[in-house]
Amino acid sequence: MTRTSVAPREPTSLQAHHEMLRRYVEVRTNTLKLAAPLSPEDQMVQSMPDASPTKWHLAHTTWFFETFILSPHVRDYVPFDARYKFLFNSYYKQLGGHPDRAIRGAFSRPELYAVLRYRNHVDNCIQTLFDREVSVELLRLLELGLNHEQQHQELIITDIKHAFWTNPLRPSYQPGQIKAFGPASQPLSWIAFDEGIHEAGHDGCGFAFDNELPRHRTCIKPFRFASRLVTNAEYLEFMADGGYLRPELWLSDAWDHVNANGCAAPLYWEREGDAWYVFTCRGSLPLNPNEPVCHVSFHEADAFARWAGARLPTEFEWEVAAGSVEIRGNLLESGAYHPARLAPIRICSKFSGMCGSGPRARMALIQVIVRQPVR
Amino acid sequence: MTRTSVAPREPTSLQAHHEMLRRYVEVRTNTLKLAAPLSPEDQMVQSMPDASPTKWHLAHTTWFFETFILSPHVRDYVPFDARYKFLFNSYYKQLGGHPDRAIRGAFSRPELYAVLRYRNHVDNCIQTLFDREVSVELLRLLELGLNHEQQHQELIITDIKHAFWTNPLRPSYQPGQIKAFGPASQPLSWIAFDEGIHEAGHDGCGFAFDNELPRHRTCIKPFRFASRLVTNAEYLEFMADGGYLRPELWLSDAWDHVNANGCAAPLYWEREGDAWYVFTCRGSLPLNPNEPVCHVSFHEADAFARWAGARLPTEFEWEVAAGSVEIRGNLLESGAYHPARLAPIRICSKFSGMCGSGPRARMALIQVIVRQPVR
Amino acid sequence: MTRTSVAPREPTSLQAHHEMLRRYVEVRTNTLKLAAPLSPEDQMVQSMPDASPTKWHLAHTTWFFETFILSPHVRDYVPFDARYKFLFNSYYKQLGGHPDRAIRGAFSRPELYAVLRYRNHVDNCIQTLFDREVSVELLRLLELGLNHEQQHQELIITDIKHAFWTNPLRPSYQPGQIKAFGPASQPLSWIAFDEGIHEAGHDGCGFAFDNELPRHRTCIKPFRFASRLVTNAEYLEFMADGGYLRPELWLSDAWDHVNANGCAAPLYWEREGDAWYVFTCRGSLPLNPNEPVCHVSFHEADAFARWAGARLPTEFEWEVAAGSVEIRGNLLESGAYHPARLAPIRICSKFSGMCGSGPRARMALIQVIVRQPVR
Amino acid sequence: MTRTSVAPREPTSLQAHHEMLRRYVEVRTNTLKLAAPLSPEDQMVQSMPDASPTKWHLAHTTWFFETFILSPHVRDYVPFDARYKFLFNSYYKQLGGHPDRAIRGAFSRPELYAVLRYRNHVDNCIQTLFDREVSVELLRLLELGLNHEQQHQELIITDIKHAFWTNPLRPSYQPGQIKAFGPASQPLSWIAFDEGIHEAGHDGCGFAFDNELPRHRTCIKPFRFASRLVTNAEYLEFMADGGYLRPELWLSDAWDHVNANGCAAPLYWEREGDAWYVFTCRGSLPLNPNEPVCHVSFHEADAFARWAGARLPTEFEWEVAAGSVEIRGNLLESGAYHPARLAPIRICSKFSGMCGSGPRARMALIQVIVRQPVR
Repeated sequence: MTRTSVAPREPTSLQAHHEMLRRYVEVRTNTLKLAAPLSPEDQMVQSMPDASPTKWHLAHTTWFFETFILSPHVRDYVPFDARYKFLFNSYYKQLGGHPDRAIRGAFSRPELYAVLRYRNHVDNCIQTLFDREVSVELLRLLELGLNHEQQHQELIITDIKHAFWTNPLRPSYQPGQIKAFGPASQPLSWIAFDEGIHEAGHDGCGFAFDNELPRHRTCIKPFRFASRLVTNAEYLEFMADGGYLRPELWLSDAWDHVNANGCAAPLYWEREGDAWYVFTCRGSLPLNPNEPVCHVSFHEADAFARWAGARLPTEFEWEVAAGSVEIRGNLLESGAYHPARLAPIRICSKFSGMCGSGPRARMALIQVIVRQPVR
Repeated sequence: MTRTSVAPREPTSLQAHHEMLRRYVEVRTNTLKLAAPLSPEDQMVQSMPDASPTKWHLAHTTWFFETFILSPHVRDYVPFDARYKFLFNSYYKQLGGHPDRAIRGAFSRPELYAVLRYRNHVDNCIQTLFDREVSVELLRLLELGLNHEQQHQELIITDIKHAFWTNPLRPSYQPGQIKAFGPASQPLSWIAFDEGIHEAGHDGCGFAFDNELPRHRTCIKPFRFASRLVTNAEYLEFMADGGYLRPELWLSDAWDHVNANGCAAPLYWEREGDAWYVFTCRGSLPLNPNEPVCHVSFHEADAFARWAGARLPTEFEWEVAAGSVEIRGNLLESGAYHPARLAPIRICSKFSGMCGSGPRARMALIQVIVRQPVR
Repeated sequence: MTRTSVAPREPTSLQAHHEMLRRYVEVRTNTLKLAAPLSPEDQMVQSMPDASPTKWHLAHTTWFFETFILSPHVRDYVPFDARYKFLFNSYYKQLGGHPDRAIRGAFSRPELYAVLRYRNHVDNCIQTLFDREVSVELLRLLELGLNHEQQHQELIITDIKHAFWTNPLRPSYQPGQIKAFGPASQPLSWIAFDEGIHEAGHDGCGFAFDNELPRHRTCIKPFRFASRLVTNAEYLEFMADGGYLRPELWLSDAWDHVNANGCAAPLYWEREGDAWYVFTCRGSLPLNPNEPVCHVSFHEADAFARWAGARLPTEFEWEVAAGSVEIRGNLLESGAYHPARLAPIRICSKFSGMCGSGPRARMALIQVIVRQPVR
Repeated sequence: MTRTSVAPREPTSLQAHHEMLRRYVEVRTNTLKLAAPLSPEDQMVQSMPDASPTKWHLAHTTWFFETFILSPHVRDYVPFDARYKFLFNSYYKQLGGHPDRAIRGAFSRPELYAVLRYRNHVDNCIQTLFDREVSVELLRLLELGLNHEQQHQELIITDIKHAFWTNPLRPSYQPGQIKAFGPASQPLSWIAFDEGIHEAGHDGCGFAFDNELPRHRTCIKPFRFASRLVTNAEYLEFMADGGYLRPELWLSDAWDHVNANGCAAPLYWEREGDAWYVFTCRGSLPLNPNEPVCHVSFHEADAFARWAGARLPTEFEWEVAAGSVEIRGNLLESGAYHPARLAPIRICSKFSGMCGSGPRARMALIQVIVRQPVR
């Protein structure tokens, strides 16, 4: 959803050092901008155990810099509040425990203003530390912290969207309309990929999380990749064709889940009479048939693909295909928080800058289908 | 915890009318005073499904007046917000549903200030209505609403106490200390009550909830009532005597519960080394051995009574005994939110004003033990 | 469901002694007769945690005699199998624990024949003990054990009925048909009971469980008692009138339960086309409109009574009314395991032998409605 | 645990046909032999939702032949009992539903003898069908059914072992002792595998399940494979070194699970004083330090490997390594139902018959550790 950081190649150079501090300010400020439309009360809401309150995201990302950079690297560092080490730990068991994640929404204290002061304090200490000394190790940790914070920027948006969805008043995160869409999407065609040995995992340019490493060779059989994402219109066809009523389309666990929970449409979809609406960061909007379908579960994506005579790509097929595609769409900077209109996938002559296979990939994974070539 | 309202005997008299409006302002203001020490974030917290956020209490008590007085009795009444009818319904199914009570803590909207405006709006409309007309029925509904609001005043305190208890920072609802206690409590003696036919239920003076009616005769066998509440010191003796480790003291379900949850002390008790502390509205304080034991469950009270060679009183024994006792202690007006020091029960020559057997009685029920007379 | 035992008035007399041993053989044999139609596999089934396998009932009732009579009263008694003390304990915590009741159905060992040998062994030891000595205490324990076993006789039938209900093959416990019913039931009328002080609890003639004691006086307001049980036809009217769809008829918890579980008819009722069938110990049979409605929950009985403009009787109203009624119906000895056809309640001139207020009363409690007199 | 079937290369040849029928009789008979030590009651037990009763395994494997061979391929086939189609379906949703798997233990009917007649009936019909006609398709289905039945043979043993473990009497599936073990196991060394492209998945000789296909190329980095399985003695070292108390050794979910369930040893291990015992198909036996550790969960295996400075192999590393190893050990035919004593892995000059990567592989997967080569 957001461009990942690109680390300097000579990290200890003065220029790299300045660039990293500039990015620190930029990323940290962006987080505050995402929280800005939300009241202190909005920032308290945890609408399910897997989601977290905005205030918690603000504090936990700060905790990361304090715990992994300031505490071990600043001599005689005095924590802003010694109790935060436990309070804002997410799940790092070796740091001595953390609260049950299901009750993060119960923490009215520290108040929002105290969390904002915490952010300020840590930002100042980081600035002071990096003014005084720098090392490859410190820059590496700083970059890790910034990428970690960018992950939580994504979560702030996804979590508040769910929080507002559970509120019968259906508040909007943002005012205004989503921009009008262009013409109907183009017909789906298939892009062929040959059998071959490919490299997968982080290619060494810029930052990567540990689960994107090591880069290794992988053998891929020939496959054909859809030329664009699946649209809402296509998903509606699946529904109209009894998609949710036909056990042969679903995995066994999925079928049990669909029946136990009465699933009949993707999350955030609501029907009024004959019309479908979708809940967005701008409130409930008429479903646009030409947009890519979104917020489907793995089970739904799998059933759709089977219905369509295709299957979901493997992680490695996805990575190979995505590696050749120009990155476009409503990234975080666009402020849209909604998929961009569909355009055909543009194959680049060369790999063009998408380093790694981070969260972006995972979110899109379920929106693409794949076919084995006819033999 | 608070004195219940006393209704005028001639409710349509002008004096009764004025008195009721005076009480309306007083009760409604008291609710705001209870919420005053809490930030908007504090007022969001729901720490378990059985508790509710303060903000919800503020809104739901207002909803009660709007739903049962303004909507049916004010011609062309326009609700403050039509969606509140559903949103702040607690469990009146016939009004068309209500949100799942476990997610009351997820409602960041309406914000606190909107709820305060809602209170203001309804207060103004009530004032206007009662300036213009009045009837026995309206006064009866107003009195019901005020007693309902007083119940929620109790819940505001009990719920925020639990909310703060679940927060690792252990915030205090109030600053300051609990007043020093007097000398150790007097030895427990037994007050005998003879066999006889007694009246139970509301006696007709003042307000009563429907579950306190009708007043009816009940036969009571002779019993002896403890002359004072059980103390923390006595409960510690029970614990030291293996109270939580002896199955013969517990009901079967209770024993399963104790073992499944590792119960070893009352709620809000914490041990540090050899000392016990108790969490209060003023934070964690050393356990005072002379205070009445508090926050024990029915199961714990039952096991303690068995250990002490006694049993819990029946509802009717309690009502008969309590009816003859002077009401003293830290009622809501005291601002203590903690049991008063133990004094012997003072038997009045005559029943003196405790009409009904409301929540007060229920809370104390588990702190008194009873013995059958030796035959 | 079965007549409770009647203890001799001079329990140590020789005649009383012989009578008790005769009853011992009779009751123990009846239990085996109830198990006789069931295969060893049938006797293993536990279809929900609250039910128990037949084999477990056979063993547990035997365990009762071994644990409370043989072990403490026979010098040097060697248990049949020392491990059974734990294995067949139901919930007596002070005896040192028991298996989780939800896995009673997992005990293939001891096999049925071993349990039958266990019964035989204990029966022989009891016979030997009572041939040698006798005392008021021993006779009291024996009578308690027999009444305990009679309770489990009821449970054998109710539990196997549920077990067979959960099996898609819907086996029958018994072959054959339920006898044809007589003419339609008579119109319901109301029998008035005056205000007064009544005695409640066991009256001293014969056996009683501890929860039927002590006998005590209770004050009852005037009420009117239905002259017969509620029929299936009447319950169908309730259903046709939207009984399961109208929240105002249900308690709040009941309404949540009805909706969460899709309740639309009593347990064991099934619809095929326009016809209703009911699962019985003789398999699935057409619903007889003139039979008393059966297997309704407290919530359903309460909602029905509200719909009918009445309410359920209190425990004491029931006891007073039932005390004056002749006991008739399909008791255990009838072998029907199904309610008898409806006849008007016959008021006896004098209390006629229904001592106690045991399980019978509880099962019928929910089938009778009551009205306050018009004042 | 058992050798998978080897299909004839010319399946329609007469010899292949006879060979397949011979195997049919052999496999079907083996299933009955596994059930033979168990009483009808033993064959009813389902000790957890993921396990099934023996009787269910006997019926479900028969259902497979009836549903997929007899019903579609025998003209006018009349099912043994039409209700079994639903009753003994495991989870094939497209066949029209199946009972909740958690209540398989509640099916006392059909009785064991009826299930045995069902087996007999289907065996006869299969024999008749294959005497009359044969085709590649029919032989393929028969082979699938036999491999399916061999899977359930494994489950019969694993499920009854768990069933007997939950019974406080701890019955034994088999009498007798496990054979004495030889000398202590040899020191663990590391077998190096070079980087390279390997084939994974079924190699075409004999039967394979669909999830073992298609065979495809996979790239493997260099790794070193342990020369033998991990022993109980080594696992005890891990435990003695605080293995279950050190969060840094566990995945986050695993750590929560260990603490929530009080895990402190593998399943089936019990301590008495200083000695460890392990529950086996021959009852509880002293833990043999030289045996391979068994019944550890993925989480435990993963934590052990981390503690040992290694990691678990990937599926493909395992398959490559195992493909070069001679198959030895206590396969089903041995009747041991317990791991064989440890011997060094013997690398074959050539791949020697282990076709596929079925259940065997999965069970062993967690017992081997792997190391990256030092670079």
